[in-house]
Amino acid sequence: MNRKSFLKRSGLALTPALLPAIPVWANEKEQTPFNADGPYVKFFADGDFFDGIAYLQQLEEANKKQYLKVDRYGNGGAVEELEKRFATVTGKEKAIYMPSGTMANQLAIAVLSGENTKVFVQDTSHVYRDEADAAQSIFNKRLMPLAKDKTFFTAEELKQAIENLGHEEVFKSGIGCVSVENPVRRTDERMIPLDEIKKISGYCRSNNIKLHLDGARIYMASAWSGIGVKEYASYFDTVYISLYKYLGASGGAILCGDKEVIDKMPHLIKIHGGNMFGNWLNAAMALHRLDGIEERLQAAIKRANEIFAALGPLGISVSALENGTNTYKVKFPDGTDGQKLQKELRDHFILMPPPGRDNIGKLTVNETLLYREKEYIVDAFTTALKK
Amino acid sequence: MNRKSFLKRSGLALTPALLPAIPVWANEKEQTPFNADGPYVKFFADGDFFDGIAYLQQLEEANKKQYLKVDRYGNGGAVEELEKRFATVTGKEKAIYMPSGTMANQLAIAVLSGENTKVFVQDTSHVYRDEADAAQSIFNKRLMPLAKDKTFFTAEELKQAIENLGHEEVFKSGIGCVSVENPVRRTDERMIPLDEIKKISGYCRSNNIKLHLDGARIYMASAWSGIGVKEYASYFDTVYISLYKYLGASGGAILCGDKEVIDKMPHLIKIHGGNMFGNWLNAAMALHRLDGIEERLQAAIKRANEIFAALGPLGISVSALENGTNTYKVKFPDGTDGQKLQKELRDHFILMPPPGRDNIGKLTVNETLLYREKEYIVDAFTTALKK
Amino acid sequence: MNRKSFLKRSGLALTPALLPAIPVWANEKEQTPFNADGPYVKFFADGDFFDGIAYLQQLEEANKKQYLKVDRYGNGGAVEELEKRFATVTGKEKAIYMPSGTMANQLAIAVLSGENTKVFVQDTSHVYRDEADAAQSIFNKRLMPLAKDKTFFTAEELKQAIENLGHEEVFKSGIGCVSVENPVRRTDERMIPLDEIKKISGYCRSNNIKLHLDGARIYMASAWSGIGVKEYASYFDTVYISLYKYLGASGGAILCGDKEVIDKMPHLIKIHGGNMFGNWLNAAMALHRLDGIEERLQAAIKRANEIFAALGPLGISVSALENGTNTYKVKFPDGTDGQKLQKELRDHFILMPPPGRDNIGKLTVNETLLYREKEYIVDAFTTALKK
Amino acid sequence: MNRKSFLKRSGLALTPALLPAIPVWANEKEQTPFNADGPYVKFFADGDFFDGIAYLQQLEEANKKQYLKVDRYGNGGAVEELEKRFATVTGKEKAIYMPSGTMANQLAIAVLSGENTKVFVQDTSHVYRDEADAAQSIFNKRLMPLAKDKTFFTAEELKQAIENLGHEEVFKSGIGCVSVENPVRRTDERMIPLDEIKKISGYCRSNNIKLHLDGARIYMASAWSGIGVKEYASYFDTVYISLYKYLGASGGAILCGDKEVIDKMPHLIKIHGGNMFGNWLNAAMALHRLDGIEERLQAAIKRANEIFAALGPLGISVSALENGTNTYKVKFPDGTDGQKLQKELRDHFILMPPPGRDNIGKLTVNETLLYREKEYIVDAFTTALKK
Repeated sequence: MNRKSFLKRSGLALTPALLPAIPVWANEKEQTPFNADGPYVKFFADGDFFDGIAYLQQLEEANKKQYLKVDRYGNGGAVEELEKRFATVTGKEKAIYMPSGTMANQLAIAVLSGENTKVFVQDTSHVYRDEADAAQSIFNKRLMPLAKDKTFFTAEELKQAIENLGHEEVFKSGIGCVSVENPVRRTDERMIPLDEIKKISGYCRSNNIKLHLDGARIYMASAWSGIGVKEYASYFDTVYISLYKYLGASGGAILCGDKEVIDKMPHLIKIHGGNMFGNWLNAAMALHRLDGIEERLQAAIKRANEIFAALGPLGISVSALENGTNTYKVKFPDGTDGQKLQKELRDHFILMPPPGRDNIGKLTVNETLLYREKEYIVDAFTTALKK
Repeated sequence: MNRKSFLKRSGLALTPALLPAIPVWANEKEQTPFNADGPYVKFFADGDFFDGIAYLQQLEEANKKQYLKVDRYGNGGAVEELEKRFATVTGKEKAIYMPSGTMANQLAIAVLSGENTKVFVQDTSHVYRDEADAAQSIFNKRLMPLAKDKTFFTAEELKQAIENLGHEEVFKSGIGCVSVENPVRRTDERMIPLDEIKKISGYCRSNNIKLHLDGARIYMASAWSGIGVKEYASYFDTVYISLYKYLGASGGAILCGDKEVIDKMPHLIKIHGGNMFGNWLNAAMALHRLDGIEERLQAAIKRANEIFAALGPLGISVSALENGTNTYKVKFPDGTDGQKLQKELRDHFILMPPPGRDNIGKLTVNETLLYREKEYIVDAFTTALKK
Repeated sequence: MNRKSFLKRSGLALTPALLPAIPVWANEKEQTPFNADGPYVKFFADGDFFDGIAYLQQLEEANKKQYLKVDRYGNGGAVEELEKRFATVTGKEKAIYMPSGTMANQLAIAVLSGENTKVFVQDTSHVYRDEADAAQSIFNKRLMPLAKDKTFFTAEELKQAIENLGHEEVFKSGIGCVSVENPVRRTDERMIPLDEIKKISGYCRSNNIKLHLDGARIYMASAWSGIGVKEYASYFDTVYISLYKYLGASGGAILCGDKEVIDKMPHLIKIHGGNMFGNWLNAAMALHRLDGIEERLQAAIKRANEIFAALGPLGISVSALENGTNTYKVKFPDGTDGQKLQKELRDHFILMPPPGRDNIGKLTVNETLLYREKEYIVDAFTTALKK
Repeated sequence: MNRKSFLKRSGLALTPALLPAIPVWANEKEQTPFNADGPYVKFFADGDFFDGIAYLQQLEEANKKQYLKVDRYGNGGAVEELEKRFATVTGKEKAIYMPSGTMANQLAIAVLSGENTKVFVQDTSHVYRDEADAAQSIFNKRLMPLAKDKTFFTAEELKQAIENLGHEEVFKSGIGCVSVENPVRRTDERMIPLDEIKKISGYCRSNNIKLHLDGARIYMASAWSGIGVKEYASYFDTVYISLYKYLGASGGAILCGDKEVIDKMPHLIKIHGGNMFGNWLNAAMALHRLDGIEERLQAAIKRANEIFAALGPLGISVSALENGTNTYKVKFPDGTDGQKLQKELRDHFILMPPPGRDNIGKLTVNETLLYREKEYIVDAFTTALKK
């Protein structure tokens, strides 16, 4: 099957929310090929999305390892297994499947905060900017943004902000909790230094303030920092991890924490309308892809390093970001036609967001880099650059 | 593979909520075989559930008819197609995919009611009894139950209840809307006579009161009453239909109504945490199983009638309920050991809830009856009764 | 000053909510004289309302006993004194001034219920019928009415209702609390037998369910039952008592309970907008009128008994209600023109709701009966009946 | 009666919220004399508070002009008159009495915003800092603070903030309304230039965004700017004005706006628990003090100017603030003992917050300056400074 034919039958493009600022596709009418007819190497996103038949193939593979088991309303089957698995992974007492990261974040924050209103978050966080004011309009919380346009606030900044409330306001409404996103998607997936996390955690614990981790992409932080997911989780009361960003599921999230907190969730999920009949198609996929994820990410980093080193002689310089995880800055040789380069690479089953006019762009490293040998990828760049 | 081995690997049983009052399984430790290793005829539930590999097989079949297309956050792909399909089916301007029936009901009621508080419902309805007080605790509504323990309230009873408010209360809080479930699961899926629906609809329209249909199982009402889904829908402002009860999806719901109403839903779904990344695994399945559903249900009814007629001479009398749909009353011969009968039938790939001590039970008709010929089923009963 | 002139300057009539079903006034355009120009004996309402100059005179009297002290936002002054006084009266740890009975009831129920949704109430209670669905629309509660059209539910009925939930609903939402109104305005201020209160309280305590008393008119129950306010309060976790129904204040309520509960109220009052700058005009009046209230009510009962006995020979029979408090049934002689009788009595400074066509009506006993001697009142009836 | 004796019987001090940062009283145990035994000139607050007998005296005066008329639950009597009066004053269709400014602001914002979440406010505003997060925790709003630590935001800043939302957030939640406080208490009651108000109003109207005025102290802005209350009100959809800050009432607020908006308020007041039985004690006082308020404020400004001019030769320099209203900066001669000065002035029935260590302080102008002749006041300062 050629590219033309498969494009005709392909699904739709990434929504704007997911797209890098620089558009991936020259012609918007051409849509994401994803991996419907072959393994595409993708220099964007945190992992692969399995669409259509590819999703079924993954689940068939999963079924070979262990028979697929259904849940009923989130109970039993693959969902229960996933929950146990993530409780172990994060070192928490309990875990629960959630339909969305928004629900995971919001319910965690709501339960940790109890009757108190104020919740401190990063200005750049998903909770603050990408949850449509759910916190304020549904969950009766007041989000207090810190670290305007930055990846993280320091423990000191948090402390100041909390202490300032005493001067700024007459009527107290109580500190609910603190929520930290790590890594931060809106700052190119940069991460928070472990030291700062420790300080924030220490401050919160000594002031009896609960702390939530929006760890949707915590495996990215972990892969690049070398700090285990369990260690990250140990500094927080609750941790949310996405099931679809790099674990292949078509949706879903997991929330881990103390039994007392997690046991409140089924009722809350139900009354907010998130209690679905069957969730095993996501849970089984996430369980399947969780096997070996850490090794595959390490391999992808290794592959990326080799590729980037080999691109240097071609005039393509790739550099890591400060506190960066999987997103790298790339500079192409002067005079490169970014749009054309993107198009040529696509013919080699390599997808990349085009650089800007200054020939500077971003490359994201994920396990799709393992679909092709380093030589294949470097050759593709070499060929594409020549055209 | 024999029954023993497959039972070991099967998923878990139906949750209590779904089970008929009479337990399906003699031994609770043995779990639902579903259709993992062969087509089971099931005299309970509204349709078949496709578990594990069976689900994948259905989607592969679907893919043969039309390439599976993914959605992104409910936009595009199979979800968009499903929405268009159901808008046509119900004759409404627009339709939207929802993660759960609870969310579909609650958001429809919330939007139809606006600032007004009071919502009239059947005492036996899902909205009143099976949504964990979501209406009151999350959506700021006061449910006003009518028709205690009955299938439906009449237009006259509704009128009286609304007019009585004037005498019973000093401060007015406004009539939000009326919600009608049809058919009603808690009354053995009995349905509301069309005439009464017309009167209720007429009363509401002439009093400018919005009307919601919890038509989770509206295809059951339609199949048994002969009244089209579109006609049913025409009497209501919004209609919710389940995707998993008889359309095979692992979850999900569809809500249809005026554009003005449906256009408010994406934001509401998002802030309540129901906006999932990919929903196409459910949407594609429902689309696939929707093809021919009406014909299959008519065939199942025909098959049921033939079987029930043939059971008579065996001393098994089956009779329809008043205003009944797919649930029938069954009386087995005196002295029948219901538990044993159930067990024997299961060895013939026929599942049935056991009758009570008075040998009276329920049989539910659905399209799994088409998995076996009439003769096979009657023979199975004959053999099982003899043992 | 004659009646005409004072009527011209009088304020407006009672709102419909307060009026007995039978209108007090023959001519609706004539308005309530209240006590603007002389002491009116009023056979309706629970006490006197002091309007205009009369209110000022009462406060001047109060000032002679103790200098009037202002509060600021509910802190200090007469408000603080009132709170201490009522904590003592009810034997509770703490009391707090509230702007309205609706707020007192709603906040008490909200705090006692915590995260739980279901609140059991009398069908005839103020909370259920006269608070405009505040519980459902603002406080996220589901009111569960018991004792349709009756004064009270029994402990056994409460127990049954709570136990039935297990069968009636699949998803649990938790028992919030139980609220009991005593006496019940909507059933002619009848009261609940103490024995039943003890049983309800015992059941709730042994099941760890909190119990609120809407004791807006608890002094009426107390005066007629002989049971002290403190004893009534002892069976409940929180108690609300009105400040305007018989304590003369122009508005306001007091809520008493455990320190832990009451300490949550100032924040809740504030965020709901009920934190007023000065509340001392109500608090000082209630403090003033609280002095001797119990003695005055006993004197009023004695006076009423004497008057009612003396009315018998006139053919007017007055009888107490079952479990009644201050409302009595009155039967006038056949052929009495009720409207005319009312009018004549008014000229004698006696106000009374007119009887119905069957000559049966209601008389309410309150401390305004002490404004005139028994003989004066009996003479007035004698004269009025003759005309 | 001497000062000692009356201090013993006086009420309590102003709450911290109302006090200037510099404490008014040398000895905190001595409390506010207010005007209980004679007219005090107060160089703080926006007007006089009438406490105890003084309140009754004011109402007796009011009664001489017009008989005091009671309301019932906010209907009729002095409340109705007050509402009509303020509708005229502000040029709005309708006005409604509210128990508190917090409720007035919150309900206005809630109704103007409808289903939309985001509400733009000044960072220094009462709505943002002094309402205990009511907007977020009860009214489902997200406050968007502009103009950090400043008196006002410009129309351009508002426009930028609204337009930036498109870039900053993925999911839209809708612009609810804009709320403007004028003058701003937290910035020493400075006011917003009329030109900027016109621009903000113009921007909002052309973008179909509703605009609320927290005009608690709008009479202060009006007195100092010369712009009528009606003109200020004309730029806004709703206007709230306080009844106790300078109109003498013990509490209460008025909200004015379109009939469609105001007609929604009684139900909202009721369900939030703010519907009090009698509100006429506040309404009648505000009506009484409203007569001539503008003339008295002009006279007070004139008196202040004369006094301040006469203080100059004493080495006391008083200067207006930029965009200032009734608060002035005062500089006392070097070496002044502020505490002692305050104490001496108090013996002359003049109250003043003491200056700081740099001899700089604030003087607020209000109608209490009219209680004494210019000469008396200047003499008092002269004498006090000498001691």
